[in-house]
Amino acid sequence: RFFSCGIGMAKSKFEYVRNFETDDTCLKNCYIVVRLDGRNFHKFSEQHNFSKPNDGRALGLMTRSARSVMEDMDDVIISYGQSDEYSFVFKRSTNWFKRRASKLMTHVASHFSSSYVFYWKDYFGDQPLLYPPGFDGRVVLYPSNRNLRDYLSWRQADCHINNLYNTVFWTLVQRGGLTTTQAEDRLKRTLAADKNEIMFSEFDINYNNEPPIYRKGTSLIWKKMEETVTKHVELPDEEEKEVLVTRTRRRVSACHCDIVGDQFWEEHPDILEDDNC
Amino acid sequence: RFFSCGIGMAKSKFEYVRNFETDDTCLKNCYIVVRLDGRNFHKFSEQHNFSKPNDGRALGLMTRSARSVMEDMDDVIISYGQSDEYSFVFKRSTNWFKRRASKLMTHVASHFSSSYVFYWKDYFGDQPLLYPPGFDGRVVLYPSNRNLRDYLSWRQADCHINNLYNTVFWTLVQRGGLTTTQAEDRLKRTLAADKNEIMFSEFDINYNNEPPIYRKGTSLIWKKMEETVTKHVELPDEEEKEVLVTRTRRRVSACHCDIVGDQFWEEHPDILEDDNC
Amino acid sequence: RFFSCGIGMAKSKFEYVRNFETDDTCLKNCYIVVRLDGRNFHKFSEQHNFSKPNDGRALGLMTRSARSVMEDMDDVIISYGQSDEYSFVFKRSTNWFKRRASKLMTHVASHFSSSYVFYWKDYFGDQPLLYPPGFDGRVVLYPSNRNLRDYLSWRQADCHINNLYNTVFWTLVQRGGLTTTQAEDRLKRTLAADKNEIMFSEFDINYNNEPPIYRKGTSLIWKKMEETVTKHVELPDEEEKEVLVTRTRRRVSACHCDIVGDQFWEEHPDILEDDNC
Amino acid sequence: RFFSCGIGMAKSKFEYVRNFETDDTCLKNCYIVVRLDGRNFHKFSEQHNFSKPNDGRALGLMTRSARSVMEDMDDVIISYGQSDEYSFVFKRSTNWFKRRASKLMTHVASHFSSSYVFYWKDYFGDQPLLYPPGFDGRVVLYPSNRNLRDYLSWRQADCHINNLYNTVFWTLVQRGGLTTTQAEDRLKRTLAADKNEIMFSEFDINYNNEPPIYRKGTSLIWKKMEETVTKHVELPDEEEKEVLVTRTRRRVSACHCDIVGDQFWEEHPDILEDDNC
Repeated sequence: RFFSCGIGMAKSKFEYVRNFETDDTCLKNCYIVVRLDGRNFHKFSEQHNFSKPNDGRALGLMTRSARSVMEDMDDVIISYGQSDEYSFVFKRSTNWFKRRASKLMTHVASHFSSSYVFYWKDYFGDQPLLYPPGFDGRVVLYPSNRNLRDYLSWRQADCHINNLYNTVFWTLVQRGGLTTTQAEDRLKRTLAADKNEIMFSEFDINYNNEPPIYRKGTSLIWKKMEETVTKHVELPDEEEKEVLVTRTRRRVSACHCDIVGDQFWEEHPDILEDDNC
Repeated sequence: RFFSCGIGMAKSKFEYVRNFETDDTCLKNCYIVVRLDGRNFHKFSEQHNFSKPNDGRALGLMTRSARSVMEDMDDVIISYGQSDEYSFVFKRSTNWFKRRASKLMTHVASHFSSSYVFYWKDYFGDQPLLYPPGFDGRVVLYPSNRNLRDYLSWRQADCHINNLYNTVFWTLVQRGGLTTTQAEDRLKRTLAADKNEIMFSEFDINYNNEPPIYRKGTSLIWKKMEETVTKHVELPDEEEKEVLVTRTRRRVSACHCDIVGDQFWEEHPDILEDDNC
Repeated sequence: RFFSCGIGMAKSKFEYVRNFETDDTCLKNCYIVVRLDGRNFHKFSEQHNFSKPNDGRALGLMTRSARSVMEDMDDVIISYGQSDEYSFVFKRSTNWFKRRASKLMTHVASHFSSSYVFYWKDYFGDQPLLYPPGFDGRVVLYPSNRNLRDYLSWRQADCHINNLYNTVFWTLVQRGGLTTTQAEDRLKRTLAADKNEIMFSEFDINYNNEPPIYRKGTSLIWKKMEETVTKHVELPDEEEKEVLVTRTRRRVSACHCDIVGDQFWEEHPDILEDDNC
Repeated sequence: RFFSCGIGMAKSKFEYVRNFETDDTCLKNCYIVVRLDGRNFHKFSEQHNFSKPNDGRALGLMTRSARSVMEDMDDVIISYGQSDEYSFVFKRSTNWFKRRASKLMTHVASHFSSSYVFYWKDYFGDQPLLYPPGFDGRVVLYPSNRNLRDYLSWRQADCHINNLYNTVFWTLVQRGGLTTTQAEDRLKRTLAADKNEIMFSEFDINYNNEPPIYRKGTSLIWKKMEETVTKHVELPDEEEKEVLVTRTRRRVSACHCDIVGDQFWEEHPDILEDDNC
């Protein structure tokens, strides 16, 4: 009478389709980097009135979302973000999702995106979110500490180059009264030194004094914190007592420092694992 | 004076790290399926008081988010969802993101997730979303129409089997007064026919009369709609006129019908492309 | 006393390196094509005095080696060869080497190469083989019959184009007395029709009468043969008897026919499996 | 008049099938190991009367073929062989075949196999090769020096374990008069120390005095050799002169030493590149 028995058997008949899935396990002993990029964020930033050249609320929300990802996946040893992108570095020896690339990148993309909407109000207040934003992602593997550091240096150099350009560009427009086309022409073929010079001589701005979050982007790492909590203890003689307990917890901590040079890495020797493993 | 020149040059020095990206282009002439699954949705559904065995709000929100994905990526020819999963089928000949698997799956995962949070209030009203939810995804390729249909049949058969079990289980608990352990024991080793029988003889419920959305899940397809709009036209003699214009638009349309048998596919011959291409 | 015990234990310590192997299983329900190409065969053919534009011995040896591969791996349904290349098509549903791409292509490359040296003397007689030749290979997947046929058509069209060019070129040199540079210049920017015309009007050669093996390459397929063998039978009453037994055997069979059009495929309907599977 | 024009155009129509090839470039900055294994060499060794437990001719031919591969592809920094297998290690920074895995492994498999047949007579003399042998291959990537050394240690430990077993087994059979079944039973559950003890106490053989080529396998590396050649020089004043010129050449050199410990690597510091690159 009920058709379902047939279906019940049919299930096994269909189950062969599972074998079309392919294995995309990441090579062992490599750092796994997941990088997200905002989709059509140029348009998104216009529609949501991001201030130029940098919008503190938007950067804050990106970092809040990245923090949320790290707290969910504590094998991420460092994240680095700038503009509408964020990179998440999983430790060499991670076994999250059995190192399956598709699981790692979709989970990061999903969690980051839902966090972005979830925390929007905390950063943009009354300014409404007009539609759900999108981020796409990719996975890249790096076999050595040198390669990984060079990857992060590449992203921070990119941040620097873009921010320097954008800062001069919008200064020329907002304070210099140029049209955007004029500003573009003015900056064509200028080197970094020329741009610094324009800022300094025409607008009395020392670019190096601009906020580090704009010039350097944001790095999130784990820091060990001492935490003192009060614990309720029952003693053998049925007495009770309050005791102070100090324990160590890992907390996600943000900085806007240089990660190209050696100093950062010497100060945080626990981030990278030894190459010789 | 400014350190940035050095960095500027450094950029090219670091740029070699780009070459560590690998190409994950999907094989041509295959259907590309992206399937998303909720992460820890068992716990999530408890914490957000989903009703059992099915929560109409939750299913509605899933489908609202899937619709949002389809409207954003119109090469998705059909989506199918049930419980906390949704599958998106890209047409064989799609060239979205140059068929790069990582881009396709992260974008779907991201857009779906941000939509889920964005539309939450429309479905759950005053019930607050406690934290950002996560979905992970995968890409599977299917070379033939038969394989693709079998994939969708597999998911719909899975929907049926789980829903039949859950419906009987919660009926035994909610109306039969059994504990969850008792209900579990009762259902051990029962076949589909036995479960139907329990429902019918003990609770006077014909399972086939349960809402199709629960028994069959939700399929989203594109439907051509005639749309009549008023258009303001300027005539050559400087007169103006309002005219009625009828045009065809594609709209995402939901159904809860059987997609295992041939009827659905015969009624919608445009979904699949010919194998002989 | 013996250091080896230590090594014995060491084995398991090292065995983790196995996990660096990646899975390269070919997508199910696709034709698997392995194509081999001679390495530096231009030089090889010079050093071994191949006749121009075609050397019957060299083509014969290629086909002998391909036949040897097919006899070893009978899931190869058709092979196609021309010049210094050979393509081997595994049936859609093959499970040889669990469809692992690396195993399939290395085994084909290896077996073909050792056969080439092994059978060299049968084709080149007293002309010695000066050094071991090399072939490199690749795997390509084709999801539909149409795609597979187009792949084979592509190779046969390539054969045609190259052979037409080479035939005219060497006719101009060998019979027309042109230098190779002059012949090259003469053929620059000529179309197929022009080349046919040169052959016909200047040398009275109808290209279509050239040997099909040169114009069409070589296809190897399986043919069912009736084979009559004498069998020695022991009867129950201890008598013995010779009986004639007819049995069907599959044999590799070569042809030099057109495989672009439908006729070949209609005459051999067993080569391809139905798309609808 | 000639059908070929049609075909000429057809070529471009078919050429789309090229896009079904997938990119299998190996991750940068990793060692690329290609390992070959004899196919059905158990049977092959029986049919060609290999002596047991080791056949010097067979090992010599394997190494001769491996040397031929190395001389052809000088980015192979070390090869290691034992029994019917050989591993070839390409340097981290190699760009041979643009690091395409399929090209690398098929070329190695092909060249090794054709060499095996080509040099057969030099090792087996009058004993004829009955049919073309096959080797299959695979590619494995190792990101660090430690991983690569552990891979080689794994293979050498495997050599040791198998050779110890085989040596005792065939001593028990050939000198102890046991059947193969009895020898098998005798060795069940024995440890390395037990096997050494059997050899020593019953047959007065110290396993460590067995030939290193059997116990340790064969490593091939590049050695710089001073070579003095006579060169004919024309002087400006039209005189001619013979001069002795000393130049450095790399030659493939074999050893049968331990490659598990540090000594070998300290003596040959040029084989591995620094991890920190």
